[in-house]
Amino acid sequence: AIRYLSKRRQERIRLIGDMLRQEDFDLVLLQEVWSERDYSDLNVKLGGCYPFSHYFRSGVIGSGLCVFSRFPILDTLLYQYSLNGYPYMLQHGDWFCGKSVGLQGRRWHGSQPLLLPCSHQLHAEYCREKDAYLPHRLVQAWELAQFIRHTCKAADVVLLGGDLNMHPEDVGIRLLRGWTGLRDAFAEATHFEGCEDGCTLVPNNCFTDKSELLPFPLGIRIDYILYKAISSFTVKCEELKTTTGAAPGMDVPFSDHEAVMATLHIQRQGQAVGATLTTAEPMLADVVTEARTEVGVGLRAAQQQRYSSGRMALLALLLLLLQAMAALGALAGLDAGQPFPKLSFCLLAFLAIGILLLATGLHLFHTMEVKMLHSTEEQMRMVLRTLQECP
Amino acid sequence: AIRYLSKRRQERIRLIGDMLRQEDFDLVLLQEVWSERDYSDLNVKLGGCYPFSHYFRSGVIGSGLCVFSRFPILDTLLYQYSLNGYPYMLQHGDWFCGKSVGLQGRRWHGSQPLLLPCSHQLHAEYCREKDAYLPHRLVQAWELAQFIRHTCKAADVVLLGGDLNMHPEDVGIRLLRGWTGLRDAFAEATHFEGCEDGCTLVPNNCFTDKSELLPFPLGIRIDYILYKAISSFTVKCEELKTTTGAAPGMDVPFSDHEAVMATLHIQRQGQAVGATLTTAEPMLADVVTEARTEVGVGLRAAQQQRYSSGRMALLALLLLLLQAMAALGALAGLDAGQPFPKLSFCLLAFLAIGILLLATGLHLFHTMEVKMLHSTEEQMRMVLRTLQECP
Repeated sequence: AIRYLSKRRQERIRLIGDMLRQEDFDLVLLQEVWSERDYSDLNVKLGGCYPFSHYFRSGVIGSGLCVFSRFPILDTLLYQYSLNGYPYMLQHGDWFCGKSVGLQGRRWHGSQPLLLPCSHQLHAEYCREKDAYLPHRLVQAWELAQFIRHTCKAADVVLLGGDLNMHPEDVGIRLLRGWTGLRDAFAEATHFEGCEDGCTLVPNNCFTDKSELLPFPLGIRIDYILYKAISSFTVKCEELKTTTGAAPGMDVPFSDHEAVMATLHIQRQGQAVGATLTTAEPMLADVVTEARTEVGVGLRAAQQQRYSSGRMALLALLLLLLQAMAALGALAGLDAGQPFPKLSFCLLAFLAIGILLLATGLHLFHTMEVKMLHSTEEQMRMVLRTLQECP
Repeated sequence: AIRYLSKRRQERIRLIGDMLRQEDFDLVLLQEVWSERDYSDLNVKLGGCYPFSHYFRSGVIGSGLCVFSRFPILDTLLYQYSLNGYPYMLQHGDWFCGKSVGLQGRRWHGSQPLLLPCSHQLHAEYCREKDAYLPHRLVQAWELAQFIRHTCKAADVVLLGGDLNMHPEDVGIRLLRGWTGLRDAFAEATHFEGCEDGCTLVPNNCFTDKSELLPFPLGIRIDYILYKAISSFTVKCEELKTTTGAAPGMDVPFSDHEAVMATLHIQRQGQAVGATLTTAEPMLADVVTEARTEVGVGLRAAQQQRYSSGRMALLALLLLLLQAMAALGALAGLDAGQPFPKLSFCLLAFLAIGILLLATGLHLFHTMEVKMLHSTEEQMRMVLRTLQECP
């Protein structure tokens, strides 16, 4: 829902509001609500059935994340991913969104247990064959997993919902699930109803790009509800549903993605059970190794780009120095023979300044990128060592 | 320790290494180790007595944070503050450092309890009377407090060490202590030894700026060790020491700040005690209100700057459009009467483009700043409401 750009935005926001009011969920996580005014409109409309809500602000445009809840939101925290694409890829625009994960602590049914739902979105995949953003998405998946591990230690139930921009078998989602122990509601659901294979980006939807989905005639499943219970609780997914195309009685779907709705059964057990993290450890080690290899590939590409932009900045600086020397020479009357045409001299100087600024900016940006990729690779190495030492 | 800039850097890094090896602490938190090579040198030297270490990478230059430990570091997480000064204030340079808080989980004496030390640095104060960075520092103090609250819920003991760039009575430190329940080792220490009043930035130090410390003849205390115990543990500060000027037998101090060293007595208690957070709540509400007012002042200033830069960008765009129209007119042969001198026309166009780019960049930056200040203000409002509802 981008203002002025998204088609039939206001109509769809209205439809979403109507549907949420009618369905009366316990908790609603929305993404890509880029306009704060849309959030305010929804808030006014839903105030009656969802008295508690929060909008997460970040980045230039915002995080687009918001939450509506029937139960009080006690506290919020926003973690912005350290890598999120490139500012100069304007057509992809991810960098400007400040993608992040929001966390809220919620009191649940008035009793002690805390429910900690998170909602977020990882970097979009624009080309599956030659996916330049894979290392960034892996860094985000890793940071998301670390964030959940560190913040949800004292939680009884952890819920994560969002467009993860990853297929179920992708390394990023295996890493996230393996390292946090989160379970996939679609795989665990007793009863399922909705698009075939649980797909959430389907070719039938009039807002999706048909050519992108050519290799996947059924569509793809990239929106998830993940959960786990710690300590003395159990969670079971009783039912999972997705919307299927157009809103009832309308010709327009709610969004370009299908919504995912889960009915979770949360039960307190008699005695506390030890925190059951992670899947089988040898498998986890394989996943972390695979992710680390991909991050390493991204690291080397970023190092190459840092080097290229640094060299470009240096060349522009040299050109400027040469020009300054020539100008000084002309002032001192040394090259009286054949003076430069002033206009092209001036244009060249401006060009050099422009390139110098741009290349320096790029160099700084790729330096940060290298640092973050390097840091993630090292964290993964540390985890692998721990996994191997204490199997 | 900035390479090529800091005076007698290598000598001081060597002295610090010698001192750390000799003293044989359990845990060492270092800041402003900007060069990764310095960290590697220290790591080689200290490998024998501190077998576990970690260097936190972030930002363009790095976070400068590193940790040396006698006990295993299980896991790390880095949280970068969302606001950290302005990229165009080159002389202050904070923006480039990616200031952040690092978190490590540590196994302690081989037993169950986890020790979670954090180390970090908030934005420097360059002028106490007219402190333009106060709102940024408050946002950082708030984010730090929130980070500690959310990540340390399951920790038995929490330790925070670092140059907080705040005097003990400042609103930021009162907010941090009030909202996390952390206790100040200096105030709690049974025995103290070191600079008068525990000052860590003293006029005697040859690297400090004497004029800045004129209003404080004894110096100021801005480096802290804060701690708290949760669940069934107690922590007591038995001794606090600071270094006092030059290293023994040398003419050069270790750093521009005095080091702080604490001996903490950590004891497991018989029965679990409820998490004793925060100080008296009415006092806390006052502190949050005070901080929120300051953040609000910053918010209005940022909104003003966002508006000014937006207007400037618009004016530059208008100028460019006018020029384009004039050029088109000249091409169509409309103003045959008195053509512009080409050189100045060209210069003006480049100037307009330069201003447009700069003003747009500033506008985007201040938009982010407004978002983060607004978000912090709202979080504080939410907390205040909770504090008032359930006193």
